Amino acid sequence: MLCQAASKMAIKVIVLDPSENCPASALAYDHMVGSFDDSATVEEFAKRCGVLTAETEHVDVATLEKLEQQGIDCEPKASTIRIIQDKYLQKVHFSRHGIPLPEFMEINNLEETKRAGELYGYPLMIKGKRLAYDGRGNAVAKSEGELSSAIDVLGGFGRGLYVEKWAPFIKELAVIVARGRDNSILCYPVVETIHKENICHIVKAPADVPWRIRKLANDVAYKAISSLEGAGVFAVELFLTRDGQILLNEVAPRPHNSGHHTIESCYTSQFEQHLRAVVGLPLGDPSMKTPAAIMYNLLGEDEGEPGFKVAHQLIARALEIPGATAHWYDKPEMRRQRKMGHITLVGPSVGVLEARQKSMLREEGYENRNEVAPRVGIVMGSDSDLPVMKDAARILNMFGVSTEEW
Amino acid sequence: MLCQAASKMAIKVIVLDPSENCPASALAYDHMVGSFDDSATVEEFAKRCGVLTAETEHVDVATLEKLEQQGIDCEPKASTIRIIQDKYLQKVHFSRHGIPLPEFMEINNLEETKRAGELYGYPLMIKGKRLAYDGRGNAVAKSEGELSSAIDVLGGFGRGLYVEKWAPFIKELAVIVARGRDNSILCYPVVETIHKENICHIVKAPADVPWRIRKLANDVAYKAISSLEGAGVFAVELFLTRDGQILLNEVAPRPHNSGHHTIESCYTSQFEQHLRAVVGLPLGDPSMKTPAAIMYNLLGEDEGEPGFKVAHQLIARALEIPGATAHWYDKPEMRRQRKMGHITLVGPSVGVLEARQKSMLREEGYENRNEVAPRVGIVMGSDSDLPVMKDAARILNMFGVSTEEW
Repeated sequence: MLCQAASKMAIKVIVLDPSENCPASALAYDHMVGSFDDSATVEEFAKRCGVLTAETEHVDVATLEKLEQQGIDCEPKASTIRIIQDKYLQKVHFSRHGIPLPEFMEINNLEETKRAGELYGYPLMIKGKRLAYDGRGNAVAKSEGELSSAIDVLGGFGRGLYVEKWAPFIKELAVIVARGRDNSILCYPVVETIHKENICHIVKAPADVPWRIRKLANDVAYKAISSLEGAGVFAVELFLTRDGQILLNEVAPRPHNSGHHTIESCYTSQFEQHLRAVVGLPLGDPSMKTPAAIMYNLLGEDEGEPGFKVAHQLIARALEIPGATAHWYDKPEMRRQRKMGHITLVGPSVGVLEARQKSMLREEGYENRNEVAPRVGIVMGSDSDLPVMKDAARILNMFGVSTEEW
Repeated sequence: MLCQAASKMAIKVIVLDPSENCPASALAYDHMVGSFDDSATVEEFAKRCGVLTAETEHVDVATLEKLEQQGIDCEPKASTIRIIQDKYLQKVHFSRHGIPLPEFMEINNLEETKRAGELYGYPLMIKGKRLAYDGRGNAVAKSEGELSSAIDVLGGFGRGLYVEKWAPFIKELAVIVARGRDNSILCYPVVETIHKENICHIVKAPADVPWRIRKLANDVAYKAISSLEGAGVFAVELFLTRDGQILLNEVAPRPHNSGHHTIESCYTSQFEQHLRAVVGLPLGDPSMKTPAAIMYNLLGEDEGEPGFKVAHQLIARALEIPGATAHWYDKPEMRRQRKMGHITLVGPSVGVLEARQKSMLREEGYENRNEVAPRVGIVMGSDSDLPVMKDAARILNMFGVSTEEW
């Protein structure tokens, strides 16, 4: 998607990716096949680039630091990637900068873990410090008795573990934040993210939360990114707690799944914004050009052919939905729970889009799109308006315009 | 741009183009270097395609017809391209189908041309039948005395010429029409096209014309495309005359400059729509997702480096304009009047976008963007509202919100 945005502006992108037929290879100016975890490869690659950026935080950061010392331009800075790729270090960093986040502590043995359990209570979230994404590297212990097995699942203490106090969130929110080379910072509208087995599944933009919460989420996101170095877009994942607090969950130093909807719904997509930021162009307008968007991830439902069939059926239905855009990443292999593509719906309100999404997914009771996507709301000040408004509703129905009475 | 749309859906596009480094080559699945006017090349190319489509009407149509007989799937059909590539044949075709268009007649010698001049009056439009685009192949004779030189400019009668009665148009309009393989037809909103030296320069969407004219333009466009065979998007260029008539100017059987704005402004871009149509997917929603769009072509202002410099300066200014997207085609050579890219502005109204465009072009009196892009309109029912509303305007001004009073 970064290459798609780059092609509009004729910005030439060279990609480093270990897979010969990775999706970007079809669009990139050039593709170097190699590991972004191998020092010599990253060095050779960097020398061909005017600006070096990363779409994953799991890169060889020591090499990036060395390259920066040699004058190679990395955006965001290696220091940022070093902080973020270690989730424990990330927590320490944001905590020091006064960003609200769930309580956490390092654990090195079962004794310390039990003490953490006593302090924070259960369920207790145990996390690996590194190479964690899409819920990998997370395990939940519901009681002290489950601690040992949770630690085993994560690969033991040798891997580097820490615990987090369970955040009693009612919604997960996210904010894409863009930072230019001139340190100007712009926030995209706050979205709600809905996860399925720890993987981002649905994103709703804008998030249906009070204005005060949006403002708070933007403030926390802005402050978090201000504490990091370098240009680019960043995703700030947040918890909204029952008592109206915003806690930082984690930050990704790159375009992010929670911002895919921006391709169709915002004046400047997160991908164009990332390019503008890292090459030093002025940041674009991050606001929405459509009132609402829903992004639905196409996660592999099954391995191989059966998985492809399910995904293709869903795309076929999406193509019938007004305002739906299908993205298919053309990954060479289908695997269960793998992100194979996504569908973005844009339209007049999140409510209308939820109805369209349900129709797309053939969820029960949503066969008749007219019934679920009212085009007129009839708002009454008092019950005495009802007799008049009933006639209005009747006439609208005559013309096939569905209505909603409040 | 077709390849960009294709990459989202992972539709594989093979391109036939004579230029080794044509813009599409960077994005296409494969690029065959060769002429689309050479029979053997087109045949070889066609055998590699599931569906064959053309982004120019100047192709070897006899070969397409032969390939169709061999079972190759051409969309739109070769019959359509045959009609359209000969502008005289095109006029005869649409005239027979009852489409309103300026009067016209074939001319084979000066005598016939003079008779046409007497019949239609002056200025008289003389056109070459074939290989005409962007005004090439058109010449205007202001009087009988100018006929000979106009005919010489066009290459003489041997080339195949015809004349058209001058259309006293007040606006040029265009409608992109999509036609699916199931013969379903959808029209995009009517736009206004503004030409500069016969080349499309600015497109405004939607066109600022009364509802009746929009309806008429859509009807003419719909009827014109219904008379042709095959799937794809088509551009219908129209004249709006002083007396409120809509006359067909010409049709292009492909995505068209007048539809470039759809990438940012419509639920389904003309490029995605063309792909959906030719591969047999359902057509997408052609309506606008933003209230207004302006497309501004980046025409070469000068040859070589100086031309690049002017264009890049304009793009740099565009990147500062909210809602502006820059497209740079990365054509290997800059030539005067050549289409090198375009800028699309989307936003709340054509009026606001016109102001932003003027600011982008640094046109006189538009240095202060605040003055020209009011964000609040103050509409009064009577003069007695003025004292109250003046205070509202004062408060808005305090907050830097520009206003417009009606």
